[in-house]
Parts: sequence; C-alpha cells; structure tokens
Amino acid sequence: MIPRYTPAEFAALWSADFKYATWLEVELAATDALEHEGIVPRGTAARIRDRELRLSAERIDELERTVKHDVIAFLTHVEERAGADARWLHFGLTSSDVLDTSFAMLLTRAAALLEGRLDALVAALARVVQAHRQTPLIGRSHGMHAEPTTFGAMLAGHLCEMKRGRRRLRAAKEEIAVGKLSGAVGTYAHFPPAAEARALAALGLRPETVATQVVPRDRHAAFFAALALVAAGIERLAQNVRHLQRSEVGEAEESFTAGQKGSSAMPHKRNPIASENLCGLGRVVRAAVVPALEDVALWHERDISHSSVERMLAPDATTTLGNMLERAEKLVAGLVVYPERMAAHVAASGGLVHSEGVLLALVRAGKPRQEAYVVVQRAAMKALAGEGSFRSLLAADPELVALVSPEELGRAFDLGHTLRHCDVLVTRALEAE
Amino acid sequence: MIPRYTPAEFAALWSADFKYATWLEVELAATDALEHEGIVPRGTAARIRDRELRLSAERIDELERTVKHDVIAFLTHVEERAGADARWLHFGLTSSDVLDTSFAMLLTRAAALLEGRLDALVAALARVVQAHRQTPLIGRSHGMHAEPTTFGAMLAGHLCEMKRGRRRLRAAKEEIAVGKLSGAVGTYAHFPPAAEARALAALGLRPETVATQVVPRDRHAAFFAALALVAAGIERLAQNVRHLQRSEVGEAEESFTAGQKGSSAMPHKRNPIASENLCGLGRVVRAAVVPALEDVALWHERDISHSSVERMLAPDATTTLGNMLERAEKLVAGLVVYPERMAAHVAASGGLVHSEGVLLALVRAGKPRQEAYVVVQRAAMKALAGEGSFRSLLAADPELVALVSPEELGRAFDLGHTLRHCDVLVTRALEAE
Amino acid sequence: MIPRYTPAEFAALWSADFKYATWLEVELAATDALEHEGIVPRGTAARIRDRELRLSAERIDELERTVKHDVIAFLTHVEERAGADARWLHFGLTSSDVLDTSFAMLLTRAAALLEGRLDALVAALARVVQAHRQTPLIGRSHGMHAEPTTFGAMLAGHLCEMKRGRRRLRAAKEEIAVGKLSGAVGTYAHFPPAAEARALAALGLRPETVATQVVPRDRHAAFFAALALVAAGIERLAQNVRHLQRSEVGEAEESFTAGQKGSSAMPHKRNPIASENLCGLGRVVRAAVVPALEDVALWHERDISHSSVERMLAPDATTTLGNMLERAEKLVAGLVVYPERMAAHVAASGGLVHSEGVLLALVRAGKPRQEAYVVVQRAAMKALAGEGSFRSLLAADPELVALVSPEELGRAFDLGHTLRHCDVLVTRALEAE
Amino acid sequence: MIPRYTPAEFAALWSADFKYATWLEVELAATDALEHEGIVPRGTAARIRDRELRLSAERIDELERTVKHDVIAFLTHVEERAGADARWLHFGLTSSDVLDTSFAMLLTRAAALLEGRLDALVAALARVVQAHRQTPLIGRSHGMHAEPTTFGAMLAGHLCEMKRGRRRLRAAKEEIAVGKLSGAVGTYAHFPPAAEARALAALGLRPETVATQVVPRDRHAAFFAALALVAAGIERLAQNVRHLQRSEVGEAEESFTAGQKGSSAMPHKRNPIASENLCGLGRVVRAAVVPALEDVALWHERDISHSSVERMLAPDATTTLGNMLERAEKLVAGLVVYPERMAAHVAASGGLVHSEGVLLALVRAGKPRQEAYVVVQRAAMKALAGEGSFRSLLAADPELVALVSPEELGRAFDLGHTLRHCDVLVTRALEAE
Repeated sequence: MIPRYTPAEFAALWSADFKYATWLEVELAATDALEHEGIVPRGTAARIRDRELRLSAERIDELERTVKHDVIAFLTHVEERAGADARWLHFGLTSSDVLDTSFAMLLTRAAALLEGRLDALVAALARVVQAHRQTPLIGRSHGMHAEPTTFGAMLAGHLCEMKRGRRRLRAAKEEIAVGKLSGAVGTYAHFPPAAEARALAALGLRPETVATQVVPRDRHAAFFAALALVAAGIERLAQNVRHLQRSEVGEAEESFTAGQKGSSAMPHKRNPIASENLCGLGRVVRAAVVPALEDVALWHERDISHSSVERMLAPDATTTLGNMLERAEKLVAGLVVYPERMAAHVAASGGLVHSEGVLLALVRAGKPRQEAYVVVQRAAMKALAGEGSFRSLLAADPELVALVSPEELGRAFDLGHTLRHCDVLVTRALEAE
Repeated sequence: MIPRYTPAEFAALWSADFKYATWLEVELAATDALEHEGIVPRGTAARIRDRELRLSAERIDELERTVKHDVIAFLTHVEERAGADARWLHFGLTSSDVLDTSFAMLLTRAAALLEGRLDALVAALARVVQAHRQTPLIGRSHGMHAEPTTFGAMLAGHLCEMKRGRRRLRAAKEEIAVGKLSGAVGTYAHFPPAAEARALAALGLRPETVATQVVPRDRHAAFFAALALVAAGIERLAQNVRHLQRSEVGEAEESFTAGQKGSSAMPHKRNPIASENLCGLGRVVRAAVVPALEDVALWHERDISHSSVERMLAPDATTTLGNMLERAEKLVAGLVVYPERMAAHVAASGGLVHSEGVLLALVRAGKPRQEAYVVVQRAAMKALAGEGSFRSLLAADPELVALVSPEELGRAFDLGHTLRHCDVLVTRALEAE
Repeated sequence: MIPRYTPAEFAALWSADFKYATWLEVELAATDALEHEGIVPRGTAARIRDRELRLSAERIDELERTVKHDVIAFLTHVEERAGADARWLHFGLTSSDVLDTSFAMLLTRAAALLEGRLDALVAALARVVQAHRQTPLIGRSHGMHAEPTTFGAMLAGHLCEMKRGRRRLRAAKEEIAVGKLSGAVGTYAHFPPAAEARALAALGLRPETVATQVVPRDRHAAFFAALALVAAGIERLAQNVRHLQRSEVGEAEESFTAGQKGSSAMPHKRNPIASENLCGLGRVVRAAVVPALEDVALWHERDISHSSVERMLAPDATTTLGNMLERAEKLVAGLVVYPERMAAHVAASGGLVHSEGVLLALVRAGKPRQEAYVVVQRAAMKALAGEGSFRSLLAADPELVALVSPEELGRAFDLGHTLRHCDVLVTRALEAE
Repeated sequence: MIPRYTPAEFAALWSADFKYATWLEVELAATDALEHEGIVPRGTAARIRDRELRLSAERIDELERTVKHDVIAFLTHVEERAGADARWLHFGLTSSDVLDTSFAMLLTRAAALLEGRLDALVAALARVVQAHRQTPLIGRSHGMHAEPTTFGAMLAGHLCEMKRGRRRLRAAKEEIAVGKLSGAVGTYAHFPPAAEARALAALGLRPETVATQVVPRDRHAAFFAALALVAAGIERLAQNVRHLQRSEVGEAEESFTAGQKGSSAMPHKRNPIASENLCGLGRVVRAAVVPALEDVALWHERDISHSSVERMLAPDATTTLGNMLERAEKLVAGLVVYPERMAAHVAASGGLVHSEGVLLALVRAGKPRQEAYVVVQRAAMKALAGEGSFRSLLAADPELVALVSPEELGRAFDLGHTLRHCDVLVTRALEAE
C-alpha cells in the first residue's frame, strides 16, 4: 500500500481506526451473544455502545509497547474508556477470535470493493466488445499473423476471463466470510457454540466448522489465489493492449490526455504506460500467493508466523488489485481503436492469412493433407519473401489449379465467410455469467 | 515425475502412448461430428477406428525431428497407418484443438485419480478422529501448552481442511473439463460450433465459451492453485505429526516397520520421514502455481510459451500430489498414538493450562480483566519457574481467595468441563461435505 | 513498509523527500559533468546548488496529475524554483538515467544499512557462541534426539550462515552500485560516455557496461535474491529458537519483559513471538525474488512494467529485512538459555544417543556393519519402549558382550570424547569472514 | 527432466548409476583418509577398488523397500559385493555425509556442463554483436519507437547480461563445491577433521566450515538463484527475438529449416517457437528458487524435508537450464537478420525518432525545456496522425524556425552523429569478463 497505488476506499478499509472499530464491533457482538446465553449480565454491551467510545490508535500503540500484545493493548484501552463494564468484554475469547473474525470482515469488505470494480471493468469490456463485434482483426499466434477474427471476438475472450475471475472472487469471498469465537484452542471451553453462531450472524459471517486457535489459513490462501487469478487476467488484457499499441502495429492505443508527456527526453512518445503498469502490478498480486500458501502449515493449534505476512500482504494484495481494476476499467473505457489499421493487417501479403482455406480445399479435392500442405506452404513462403501476392501465386500453381476451381479458391479468401461465427462468440461472452 | 514418487496410474496417464491415443480419440470424435454435419463423408471415422491403429511414439518422435511440430508429426504418422481416410482427420482444426482438448481429458482424469486418493485420506482421517474423539490432548499455540482439547478434535480440523481441499479440487476439475475445437484463432472458420459441441460431449467435456487459439490458461492456473491448496493441507498435517513425534513430545509416531532402519549412523533412530517427505513435496506442488499464473498472459490469440511449462509441471504437480495423498493416507492409517503421553502433558505443571478459567472466575467476581490477569499470571510464572504447582500457588494467593471460592476454583480445573464441546467439533467434521 | 515493521532509517531512506533530493543530486552531477565537457555553460550547476532549493513533494504530485510522468513533473517543479538555469538540467538525459542512477544510490544505501545490522547480529551470535562453546546439547535430526553436540557449535552453524549471507549481501551491493547516464536508449546520443563516468564517480557509482534505456534488471534480481538468502538464514535461526522454547523442550527462550503478556486468554503463556514473527517476515522477503526475476525480461530497450513492482517491493523487502535483522539481534542478545535442561536431554533414556559409538565398537571388533546395526537397534528400541536403560540393556546382551569389553563400551558413552572437536567448529565460525 | 528437454550429458549425470558410483567414490575417499589416520586398516579401500564393483541400482531399490533408507540399502548392497572389507565403509559417517558430498560433486559437475554451454552462447552472441555493430536499428521503449541504436549495441546488452550470468554461475559453483564428512550432527565424533579435509580434497571439494548433519541449504538456494538469473537473461533475449520476428516488425527471425512446418492448420506460418519455448522454460527454472529457499530453514541439526525437493528440482533445474543454453546458442547462431527492415523503421514518419535532438537544439537556443517540449511534441503528434513528415512540420513551425537554424535542425536528424558512440558499447561488451 503506497499512496500512489491506493484508492481512497482501500486506504480507509485498512486504516488503524477502522481496524480497532471492527475489533470493538466483534467484542460487542460477542458480549451481546453471551448476554443472550445468560453468561454476561444483560445490558452490558448496550451500555458500552451508548458511550460512543472514540478509541485512540496512538494510545493503543503506546500500551502495546509494554504488553507486547496488540489485542491486550486494545482491551486495556477500552477498559480505560468504558469503565467497569469492560471487564465482560473478551469473556471466554482469545485474541485470535477477535483478530480472525475482524479479518474476515475486512477481507469480505475488500472483496466487495473489488467486486464492484470488477463489475465496472466487465461493463466497460462489454461495451467495447459490442461496439467492435464486426470489426475485422488479424488473429495472431506466436506474434505472427494467423487467421482473421474480429476485435469484438478477441475482447470477448477477455470478457469471459474477467467473468470467470469474478466467479472465483465471489467463491473466495464466500469461503472467507467465516469467523471464529471458540476460544483459546477452538474448543468452546468458555464460549458456547450457540453464542458464536449468534454473534457471527450479527456480523454477517458463518462459524468455522472446526477452528484451531485460528481460522485455518487454507481459506486465506484460496482467497489470495483468487485475487491473483483476476490479476493474471488483467495482465493478459494489458499485455495485449501493449502489443496492439506498439509502433509497428498501431491498431489501438491508450487514451493520451491533454498536457500528458510520454518521455522526458523524446517529445514524440506516446506510451502504453497504464498497460505496462498493470503488467507490473500483476506480478505484485501474484507474489502474495506463495506466502499465503506457506502460511497454511501453522504449528499445532497455531503459531503466529502468518500474522506478519498478512499485516503486509492482505492490504497490499487487495489494494493493488483494487487499483488495477480501476486502471483497467479506465484503460478499456478510453481505448482508442484504429479499424483501418486492423483491416490493413488482415489484407497484408495478398491474403496469406487464408492459407488454411486453401489447404482444406485441396483436401476436399482428395489430396492427402500433408501433400496439400506442401503445395500451400510453397506459395506462402514465396509471398512472405516478397515474390508475389499469395493469391496470385496460388492461382498460378498448376498442382493447385488442377484440383481447385477459381470459385472454390475465391471462397477460401472470403473474409465474411471466415468471420461468420464471430458473432456467436460475442453473444456468448455477453451472456455468460 | 521421478520413478521414486510416481504411482503407477500416474505413470500410465502421462505416458507418450496414452497421450497419442487421446489425441487420436479427439481427432476421431471431431471427424464423427463433421460427418454429422455433412462436411466429412460418412463412415470415415468408423473405418479408421476399425483399423485399430497401433501408433508408434518412436516414429512420431522421428517425424518430429524434421517437421518440428508434434501434432503434424502425429498426423503424418496416422496417415502412414490409416491410409487415404486420414486426410479428413484434423479437418478445420488447429493443433491446439487437439492438444488442449486432450490436455483437458488428461487433467480431468488426473483430478479423478487425485479425488479417489483424497477420499481415502479423508476416510482414514475420519477413522482416527472417531477413535480419539475423547482422548485428551494439550492444545498448543506458539508451540507452547495452551488449553486442553482432544486428539479427535485436533484431527477434526485437519479432516475439515482436507474436505475443503476436496471441494476445491472438484470445482477445479469442473473448471478444467473444457475443450476447444474452434480452429486456428477460435473463430470456427472451418469447424462449426455445433460440431464442437457434439464432439466434446462425446469426450466428456464442455466447449470453451470463447477460446483464443487455446483454452485460456486461467483455467489451468486455477487448477494448479487447487492442487497446491490440497498439498498445503497435507503439509500442515504432516508437520503436526512431526511435532507430535519429536523426542520430547512423543504423543504419536509414524509406524515403523520390521527391518526398517532410521539412520545409517545411529541405530536408535526412528524418524518421521514420511511426514518430512510430505512437507518437502508440498513445496514442489506449490512451486507450480506461479509458473501456471505466468502462463496466463499469452500474446494475442496465443503464444506457445505455456507449452514447455505444462509439459513439465502438469505431470509433476499431479503426480506429486497423487503420491502425497497416498503417503498421507498410509501415514494416518498407520499412526501410532500414545494417549498416556498426551494425558501427562495435559497435567503438566499442576494444571497450568487451566489459567483462563481462573481468570474468568476472577472477572465474574467483579475484578477488572487486566487486574485479574496480573493475579493469574503471577502464579503461572512461579509455576513455570518450578516454585510450586499452579493450583496450589493460586489456592494460597489471598487476592484470589478473597474472590473465588474453592468450588469455583475447582471448576476451572475440571477437564471434563473444559472438553465438553469437543464432541461437537468431531461431529461437525465427520458430517461436513 | 507498514509503520509497525519500519525502522526509522528506512522510513527516511524511502521517503518522497529523500527520493527527490537524490534525483536533484543526480541531475546536478550530470550537469557538472557536462560543464566539464563544454556542453553546458560553466557555473550552471553551482548556481542552482546555491539556491538551496527546497522541493515540494506535494507540488510534484500535483504536476504529475497533468503530465502523467514523474520525472517531467519533478523537472517542471525544479524549473519553477531554479529559474532559467534549469533548462540545462536533464540535458541529453532520459528519465531512466535519473531514476536508475538514484535507485542505485538508494539500494546501495539500503544495503549499507542492512550490513550494519547484519554486523550487529553477527556480533551478538558470536558472543553466545563463545559463551556456550562447552555447553552440551543434544543434536537433533528429524526432530529426534541424534548425537550430542554443544550449544555453541550449534549456533556456530548459524553464525557461519549469517556470515555467508553477509558476503552475498556485499557482493550484491557491489553489483547494484551501477548507474546509467547514457540517454534514451543507452547510446550516449546526447550525453557522452566521459561525462557519465565523471558524474557517476561523483555519486559513488560505476557506469553500466551496456545499458538499454535502463540498468538491466538482472542486477536488481540478484540483489533481491541476496536479501532473501539472508532472510532465509534468519528464518532458520528463529525456527530453531521456537523449537528450543516449546513447552516440552524448554532449553532456551526469548526474553520476556516486565509487563509483557503472552495471551489475551491464558495468563500462563510465554510465547516465542519474536521468532515466529521473523519466520513470517522471511516469507515476505522471499516473495520479492520471483517478481524481481520476472522484471528482467523487459521488452526491447525497456518497458516500464518493472517500475510499479520496484516502487512497492524495493522499500518493502529492504525495510522488512532491516527490521528482521534488528529483531534477530535482540532475540539473540536476549536469549535465555537453560543448560541444565540441555544436559537432561543429553542423558535421556540411558545414553541412547551414543548408539553410533556402540555400533562402531562392534564393527571394530569385526562384526559386519549391518549385523552390528541389528544388535544395537534391538537394545535401542527396547530402551525407547521403556524396557530399561540403553546402556544396561547393551551390557546384558550376550552378542555384544562377546565382542566389546566394558571399557570399550564405556568409551562409547563418554560425552567428553564425543564433543572433543566441537571447539574446532566454534573457532572456525568465529574466525570465518 | 523429461526426455524432450534433456541433453544426453545431463541424463547421464543424474542417472541412478552415476549417483551410486559417486556415493562409492565418496565412501572410498573417506576410507582412504581414515586409513591415513590409522583408524581403518591400511589397504581396505584399495582392496575394494580392486574388485571393480558393478553396483546394481535395481538391487539397491529392492533392499530399500525393506530398510526404507537409501544409503543403508546402498551399503548393504556394497557389503554383498565387497565382502568383509565393506564393514569399514561408512565408518564414523552418517548418510548425509555421503549424500551431501556426492550432491556437491554432482552440482559442481552440472555447473561445469552449464558453464560450457554458456561459453558457447556467449561466443555466438559475440559473433552477431560483431557482425552488426554498425547495423542501425530503431531502439524501442514501451514497445514504441524511441531513438536509433545499432543491432550490435542492442545485442551487446544481452552479451553483457550473459557474462554477468556466467560470473554468478561461477561464484555459485564455487559456493557449492563444499562437502561434509563430520558425522551424525557435524561434530566429528567418530570421523576426525583431518580425515575430512583429506578425503574432500581428493574429491575436489572443500569442507563445510560448520555443518549440521548436512551442508546448510543456503548454499543450494544461492546456487538455484544463480541458475534462475541466467535463465532470466535468456528469457529476455528470447522475448526480444519474438518481438523482432512478429509479423509487423520482421527485423529478424529464427532459422526455419527445410521440411519444417509452422502450424498444423495454416501453411503460411513461420513461428518463433524456439524463443517461445525458452520463455516458458525460464519460468520452470525460476520456479525452483522459492522451494530452494524454503529448504533452508531445516529443523535443528536437520530434517529431511529438503530431500524430496532436491531429488526433483536439482535435476530439473540444471537440465532445463542446460537445454535452454543449447537452444539459445542455436537460436543466436541461426538468427536471420533483415537490416533493410531495420533501416525502414529508423526512417519511419520522417525521422520522428530524432525528436530529442530538436528539443535540445531549442534548449541550447535558450528556450526553457518544458516550453521546448511543447513545440516539438506538437509537431510529433501531427506526424503520428499522418498530417505530414515530422521534419517538414518542424521546418514549417515559426516558433522553431525563429530559434534553430536549418543546419542545426539537420544535425538533429544526422543518424551517424546519433550512433557515434554505439561502437564503444560493442567494444565494452566484447571485452567484458
């Protein structure tokens, strides 16, 4: 979380103030539930709530320097502010009950923020997909011209990938919406299961099936993996924009605003910096997955090694992805598209990109596939070497002419025919969940 | 995939022979579907099937040295064996159609093999959980004695984690059961959507919503992440066994068979080598996640950089996890448990592990929590320093005696009361999906 | 970089103010050098220096929102403050010249801060090694008692590892102390090599042999790998402290200060939280290595994808390691050691840990090794099962008695003899570079 | 290690036969040294050597199934073959002495194989650098045309990176050339330091300063990091070739041999598959670094969790890098270069890529830098939009004409002037170590 890459909502979410407010919310929900069980005197939580405590993060930090335990420092501070009732807080709980339950609340909230941004990105992509469902584009494999597609169909693939990312994010959010109020080693020794169920429901969470001292960290690792999968999808999208923008391709480019400067040295530059930035940030989000997986194998009922990892990586990974989603949405919404450049690339080298149609025409005419391949490849290599247009080279090849009629050859070069199913792809992508 | 760690079923699954057989299966399913569409003459696939081709991996390798393309080498070899009909194979397809569809079949099959082994591990864990639902065990946080639990409840947490791993594996298997027969850049230029749907259904797969030249690699990355999550759960289990077995703990140990030798130098050794091995292998499975995520951002409609990664890591990660699951099942099934050592640790230091109950008794008696803490901590530190048993030190503390009756103090040390909810945890774990 | 884990010197190092001051230092060094070459009028840099510019990070941020380029925003701001002379700044340079050169200065400075802390840790370790060079300790492999060693010899291994880490850090610092003032694509088109050499020398750096637009990122990846290696060594040390402190072992523990509280629920707890924290932070530092390696393969003469990664991970990784080194030094300096517990473990089970000596006595007496093994293992397994002390079981074994005299058997159990070379290890560690 | 990617020398190096032969070599060197110390009867090792044992890997595997310990199985088999003398083998040693010493021998040998291949790659690069030291090429940042360079200077950067990789590999080889013959927990309890020094010297290794039961794993992690750094450099090179080959760029391409086929569907394709393959394999090598770092923190004097990791990743990472180096050398040696395409790109858009020279001319004429920038950017954006050639647009700009003479403007567009220092870069690269 560096200011440069931190949207305001994420800064608020991961602030010390919000964390301590959430801890208090957990403590009070637990106290409410214990009141219901008859363990804590009725009215305790209400009285504390009525005081509208304004906790001081500084004071908590100061106390922590002595007790060397953040939750005890917090509780001590609440005692300072809430008076005698405060002794009932944390009754039967251990620190991790508060920490993990509030962590689940924060991660769930972060997931909701991410989902909103992902929805916006999906919507932006859908608009461009729709707008360009008929725009011919040369498909590329290995960075080399392959066969034609449409720009809409190409982006439809990205749209589907983002939607898959959204499904995974939702599933991960569901998985992480699990709290734990079962005491020191998860046995409910001093806090009954019924109270846990009641308190967590009030906080919007489910109880962990079987916790140790903590909510098991495989849930968190799954969560971070889901973030990384969304980030990887953005990386693919951004990388493709970089390819489309590069000088020799020029089929699309990032919007370039008035007053923007591309290079300190070279005034002619207009660079895909948002896309490059997204590729870099994808590495950062991805880098959270392995530590999260390493956190799973805690010792016995828990050790605290995961804590420092999560203090750093949970804000970092969620915020970075939040920032990525915002930038990606802007990137897509502002994308400048050059259909005429796209068309020029489809037409390059005399329709070389229709070689498969010619191959299949020969197969249909009875030629074994690998022999047909040699005929077509021969013409293609000449066209690439500048010895003529692909189509005319074919039309002059006796071996081909003997088997394929001019009409049939023409059909192989019919762009409309080649693209006839692209619309289906677009429709599928727009309709997918 | 080194022989040492490769179960036979995985060796067969990832063999060259099985791969080529699967490729042929894909080609023939595609041909069937094209026959249905009237694109290929009826009976073509049936005639090829009737020949019961026995493909030679060696011959394919030999051909590949010239054409430098594995699928073309394969097709050339099939032409050698299947004669003229073979020209209709691969009609309208691109290599990735065959490769990705067959890869989906192999990964789905691998997932099924893993699921079977995971079921066995779950069953073995459930048996030990059941057997030890009442066996008291000292819970440990930070490696230090915390509060009592039961061995059954402790393993119940592992059981739930394995079941969560199984759910994720099933979801990942579902996600990966997606093929693609839509041609060079995924546009169905020469192979209609209806034929794809028919052919893939025959192979047990669904069509990709919008493919590029390939099935998008976020699916595969999600698959490998699911494997790593299962592996991380095994790592946690294995690590805990290592802790339980260590000389000073001795609460459980791996079975040690007749004739086994623990150390080349020290005949007295009996080491938790299976568990250690599992911890190491967990690192290997985890290491596949990042490359799989790096594979997502292919260029344009695809580049082939993912291919070498998958050739190595797909067999490695699935096989290693398969091996881990087998070993983990044996580990759990053969675990030797020492309840009396567990009981001794629960009783250590005069019931020190019941300190929370005493703390809460003081709170109930009206003492502010942090003051109560000081009273109990004082006695505990003396007990740890060997200055007396915790319980007797408390009974002699005037500050405590003034507030807590002997009966109430006794209740804090009542093991049965402390463990009263452990059975609920076991039941939850056994009943969880 | 979260405040909790950020030593003050690192906060200052990675502050915006320090960064901009460093940029200005680079620009002025470059201007000086161009004056020397006769390209910029003499006195320009001196006049700007005399103005003692106080740059405003806020103003630069504000300008960046329009120009979307941090170095241009910086230069624009300097122009605002420095007047007409400022047009000579950045003459012939590109942004990366400033960024990478200043980054090299910051990383070199970070390395120096780390080295200082590593020296302190090395010194603290050396003191404990020295103090305990004769303290017997049971060596453990697989977590099981193996053969005796001394606590000093055990820590001597950690000391050597830290010293190796220091050597690698020094080498990495040397590798990273490389700047670059060669213009847009590294060709010196408008800034001559001689000026680069002069300016970088003034900044304490060497010129890159052949740069692209940037200093190649393999240097940075090597730097982060060196950090991770130091962190891994600390992790091993911290993990071993956790093992020594665990309830059943109790051979050493972290210092526990007055007022400290171990658990919010359980007043009896004293946990190795510093060590656990270090293990977690080790994961964070390690997680920077892969993104740094991913940054190497920039496109052509550079793309900017590495930038966002480095903005986040360079401060994080260096600061986290700085924090780790400080905590590790305190951990070692404050370690409480219990030699009597160590001695008790050495003596456990009647000297079981001397089994190798007995084995070798049998071999010396002519018994084939694997047969001798069976004899000794038989007694050891009985001793482990509580059927008698190892030594007395052996003394009663006719097969052994026939071959090994009581004196020879006694020698196998002579602790002083076993430990006679431990002092050599300590000396080697203390003397190692 | 899959056959597809395994050079023969690496297959031999990592074979079971070679491993056991190396183990025997270690045992015999140890025995020799003990003979010298008077611990083992003179002539023992010589007699065993004279028997020219042919060990059977199958028999060892069979024995291991009972004893569950690979080194004991090996020793048992040697006893079967070598008779009574064999009881002196392994005297005072523990398995890790043999395993780690032989592992050091294998890794050192692997490093030597890698170094040879890296030398060949360096030589191939040097040849192309030399051949194209004067070939103009447009430099690209962000994938966009920046300023001109030469193809030789561009590759010179890669050459330097490979040489840095070679230096790191050599350092890592030196670091790993360390064995350990100090017994169960590294204390020389039954094997004196002098014997270790003698035996290891005979094997070409140095003794570990302070070992535990094993050679500490930070050495191995450093080794794998060095491999990953070489791989990352190859990845950058390969990725740049992919960019140069892409259809729209076409400045260089991989050799395409007679009979080669680029696509099963599209006969016109010629794809940079070697380069793509190298990019994928780079991910595989990189993926070994984190597990190797995770292996460092072994428990106490060692646990065996690193073993399974190394059994898989040591052969994999070294072999994969070996294969990468071979392919990269072929790639470079066979690279087909198109200087005329390079020249065309330099000339594109009327010399747009010379914008910095014009900017500096304005600055020299007294214009503040950011104002000058606006003038030049204005013309450049028009040129990019196809509204005229950059140079003519500038020549028609009154603001520029007022300050910059036609001669000075001409100098800004002088390619020879721009490239005048490129030769220095080439020379530096060729001369670098």
